[in-house]
Amino acid sequence: MALTAKGRATRQRIIEGASAHMRTDAPGTVTLDDIRASTGTSKGQLFHYFPGGKEEILLAVARHEAERVIADQRPHIDALNSWTAWTRWRDAVVARYRAHGAHCPLGNLMNQVGSTPGAAEVTGSLLDRWQLLIRQGVTTMQSEGLIDSGLDADRAAAAFIAGIQGGVQMLRSTGDSTYLEVVLDILIDHLRGRSVQER
Amino acid sequence: MALTAKGRATRQRIIEGASAHMRTDAPGTVTLDDIRASTGTSKGQLFHYFPGGKEEILLAVARHEAERVIADQRPHIDALNSWTAWTRWRDAVVARYRAHGAHCPLGNLMNQVGSTPGAAEVTGSLLDRWQLLIRQGVTTMQSEGLIDSGLDADRAAAAFIAGIQGGVQMLRSTGDSTYLEVVLDILIDHLRGRSVQER
Repeated sequence: MALTAKGRATRQRIIEGASAHMRTDAPGTVTLDDIRASTGTSKGQLFHYFPGGKEEILLAVARHEAERVIADQRPHIDALNSWTAWTRWRDAVVARYRAHGAHCPLGNLMNQVGSTPGAAEVTGSLLDRWQLLIRQGVTTMQSEGLIDSGLDADRAAAAFIAGIQGGVQMLRSTGDSTYLEVVLDILIDHLRGRSVQER
Repeated sequence: MALTAKGRATRQRIIEGASAHMRTDAPGTVTLDDIRASTGTSKGQLFHYFPGGKEEILLAVARHEAERVIADQRPHIDALNSWTAWTRWRDAVVARYRAHGAHCPLGNLMNQVGSTPGAAEVTGSLLDRWQLLIRQGVTTMQSEGLIDSGLDADRAAAAFIAGIQGGVQMLRSTGDSTYLEVVLDILIDHLRGRSVQER
């Protein structure tokens, strides 16, 4: 559907309103009426911009939240070119998930969307982009001679994705950010080629 | 409720039957009728052994599955006293979750039990025991002089828990066990005090 600039703005306003609503109400399930009320739109408008109804809106909100996952790690994740940048990025990731605690906005949305192909596409493409940005950080550091060129950047980036996913899961279920912190610290030490003896 | 030996056996038979049923049907939701049919028991018997009904049965099955999570890592996880033992344990963890693929029996159960205190207790105590066993492995290796005594065993064990949780989550959502494998390998390298340069 080709939208005018005004139409795109309205559509975006609905997405952001629904996102804000879901961030307050988490982890409850959201209804179309909730979205209408919180965005000040009519049912007709909602279906005009989202012909697929609730599932289409939730997916658009999920895409919006996925963008925010990366945005919350900026500017550090875009320029992992010094150990200071890696530390700041690590701190930004921990701070982000600490602030959300048990209520991960994207996780909550995904629970509501369920295991549809659209939902898998949103999380899959988020994780791919995330892993690519970390991988780019590793290869940048390698080209500057700050990380050993023999280190496998693909494996390292995959390990960070696993560590972050698991650390966040533990934070969500226990309220404790230690898991996320220690796995990030150990993986960064691995990049530094630093074992405990060298500290 | 004090059960006779025969009563305990019947109760255990119901748990194992329900567990087997849920392993075939995953990730569908299970009903009391499914459990009756698959365990060959009457409604009266089910409520005799599980007065709390479906939720109590599902929790008992979840406890049974949690036991299996640890059992599937035996004997290695009980005696992480050499690098060979760590490698075999790592292989057992990867093999277990590869075999389950997207259908993690405990994860499926937890989705059905929901976020009740009982469910949180089952996963919490599983993760605590798991972390403790890994921690014991680290301190055993330290007492044998195989891991640097300056390494923090608590942090290392917490990082393994995070890495395994995230690696399994990635395996469940992508079907790819690489995430789990690389995070385990890097964490074991960390224990060895081995950086890429030393390979």
